[in-house]
Amino acid sequence: MGWAIAIHGGAGDIPLSLPPEQRQPREEALQHCLKIGVEALQAEMHPLDVVELVVRELENIPHFNAGKGSVLTNKGTIEMEASIMDGRTKKCGAVSGLKTVVNAISLARLVMEKTPHIYLGFDGAEEFAKEQGVETVDSSHFVTAENVERLQHAQKANIVQIDYSTQPLQNGTKKEKATVANGDSQLGTVGCVAVDSNGNLASATSTGGLVNKMVGRIGDSPIIGGGTYANELCAVSATGKGEAILRATVARDVAALMEFKGVSLKEAANCVVHERTPKGTVGLVAVSAAGEVAMPYNTTGMFRACATEDGYSEVAIWSAS
Amino acid sequence: MGWAIAIHGGAGDIPLSLPPEQRQPREEALQHCLKIGVEALQAEMHPLDVVELVVRELENIPHFNAGKGSVLTNKGTIEMEASIMDGRTKKCGAVSGLKTVVNAISLARLVMEKTPHIYLGFDGAEEFAKEQGVETVDSSHFVTAENVERLQHAQKANIVQIDYSTQPLQNGTKKEKATVANGDSQLGTVGCVAVDSNGNLASATSTGGLVNKMVGRIGDSPIIGGGTYANELCAVSATGKGEAILRATVARDVAALMEFKGVSLKEAANCVVHERTPKGTVGLVAVSAAGEVAMPYNTTGMFRACATEDGYSEVAIWSAS
Repeated sequence: MGWAIAIHGGAGDIPLSLPPEQRQPREEALQHCLKIGVEALQAEMHPLDVVELVVRELENIPHFNAGKGSVLTNKGTIEMEASIMDGRTKKCGAVSGLKTVVNAISLARLVMEKTPHIYLGFDGAEEFAKEQGVETVDSSHFVTAENVERLQHAQKANIVQIDYSTQPLQNGTKKEKATVANGDSQLGTVGCVAVDSNGNLASATSTGGLVNKMVGRIGDSPIIGGGTYANELCAVSATGKGEAILRATVARDVAALMEFKGVSLKEAANCVVHERTPKGTVGLVAVSAAGEVAMPYNTTGMFRACATEDGYSEVAIWSAS
Repeated sequence: MGWAIAIHGGAGDIPLSLPPEQRQPREEALQHCLKIGVEALQAEMHPLDVVELVVRELENIPHFNAGKGSVLTNKGTIEMEASIMDGRTKKCGAVSGLKTVVNAISLARLVMEKTPHIYLGFDGAEEFAKEQGVETVDSSHFVTAENVERLQHAQKANIVQIDYSTQPLQNGTKKEKATVANGDSQLGTVGCVAVDSNGNLASATSTGGLVNKMVGRIGDSPIIGGGTYANELCAVSATGKGEAILRATVARDVAALMEFKGVSLKEAANCVVHERTPKGTVGLVAVSAAGEVAMPYNTTGMFRACATEDGYSEVAIWSAS
C-alpha cells in the first residue's frame, strides 16, 4: 500500500529511430509532469486534484495531442475532448468538441461538479465554459505549424491518422515524404491515473483526437468506460485508436476483470491490451487501490511514466531491450 | 435456442394511476413495434436490421421521447441521440446533438458503416446526415405541444426531469399542476434488442434526452457500454437516468458479468439493476445468444414488450400484481 501515479502521452507506432530532438522534449515533459504529480501526492493532495493538475500540465505542452498541440480535423479546426472520474464516488465529468477552452480537463471537472449532467459537448460545452469563466483563447492558439503540415500530409494521402501512426501513407506516396510527415507526428492523447495511500483513485484523459478526423467525431477519451474509468479497485486511462478502445470498453474492462474475475491489476490490464484488443491499437496506464502500476501497450511504443511511494520511478517510450 | 426480441419505451416513475388515454396508445405502440420486430425475425432479417427497423418505428411515434416526441433542452431546442451495436463484430455507431434528422438510429448505423469513426456529434453529425441524404426536417417538426408545456413546467420548478419522473416539482408547487405537467410526461428513451436463431445479437437505443437538459448535454443512449452494448453473449439497451447509467456502465456491465463471472443473463441483468445502480434510476431490456429475455427495472415502471420464438409474448408497464 502506498501512493502511485502513472502518466501517458499517447501510444502508437513510434519508430525506434525517433530523432533525439523529438524524443528528448517529450521525455523531459513526462519527467516534469511526473514530478508535479509525485509532489502533489506527497503533499497529500486528493488523487482527483492530482490527475487534473497533471493533465492540465500535459495539455499545456505542445508536444502532446491535447490542449495546445491538438491535431486538426478535416476542416483544419480544433475539437478537443476530455474526461475525469473519481473512483470512490464514481462521480465523473466529460467534454467534447471544445474549440477555445485552454484546459479541457478542468472543464470536464466543472461539468462533474457544477451541473446535474456528466457530459457536455460542442456549443453547449463552450457556453458552459464561458459561464464558468474558465480560460479561453482563440482557436488559432492551439494550432501549431506541425499540425497544419500533419493535416496536409494526411489529406494528400487520404487517411485518418491514429495518434501515432507513422505508416499512414498509401501506395504511391514517397517513403521520404512519410518520414517528413510523421517523424514529427509522434503526438498522442494524454492521461494520468493516481492513487493515494488511503486507496483513493482517480483517472483523467484529454485529447485533440485524430489528425484529419471528421468534424464532430467523438473518440474514446471523453467516454466513461472507454478511455477513462475509475472505481474502488483501480483507475485506468487509455490511448491509441479511439474506435478500437470504444468497441472494447477498454478502461471499464480492466476494472471489470478485477471486479468480476478477481484477477490482479497487471493480469487485467495485460488481458485487455494483449488478448481483447487488436495489435497496434491500444495502450493504457492503470493503478490499483494497493498502489500497483500497469502500463501495457500493443503498439510499437507508448510515451509513459510512473512512480510509486516505495521509490520506484520510470520514464519510457519502448520496451526495455 | 431461438429468436427473441425485447423493446422498451422508457423506465421511470410511471404512476399506477396513469389515465387510459395515456396508457393505451403507448401499449398499442409497443404491441405494434413488437409485431414488426417479430415478423422481421421470422423473415430471417439480421438482428442489426431488426433493431434499426423497430427503433425507427418507435422514433416515429410521438408518444415516446425519441425522434418525433423528443423532449426539449433548457433553450427549447431539440437534441436527439442514438447508438447501435452488432454483437458478433462489435461494430457500432452513435450520434448526438441531432436537430433535423428524422431517424437518429439510422444515422448512427450510417456512421458505423460509412465512416472510419464510431461516433459523430452535433454540427458534424448534421453535416454527415446531409451528405448521406437521410431524411431531415425542420427542428420544429419534432416539437410537440406536450413537450413545450413539459419544459415550461420543468423550468418553473427549476428541475431537470429524468425520462419519466412524475414527482419533479419542488415544494410550493401545486400537486394539481404536477399532475397536469407530468400525467402526460410518461415519455421515455426507446430501445430494442434482438437475437436470431443463429445467435446473432444486436442492440439499438434512441432518445431526446432529459426535459430541460442543458444544451450540449450528452446522456447514456449514444454511449457504447452505457445505454447500448452487444457482444456474442447478449445485447442490452438501457433507459432511465442517463447519468446513473453512464456512471455504472450499465449495458457493458450486464455483458461483463456474464462474460467474466459466468452468470446467466437474468442474474447479470438483475444484479446491475437491483444491486449496482440506485433505486429509481434504471431499467433495461436484454436478450442472450440462447434466446433468453430479461427486462428488469428499479423504477416504478418501464414501458416494455418482448417475444420469443417459442410463442411467449408480453406487453407491460408495471409488475404483475
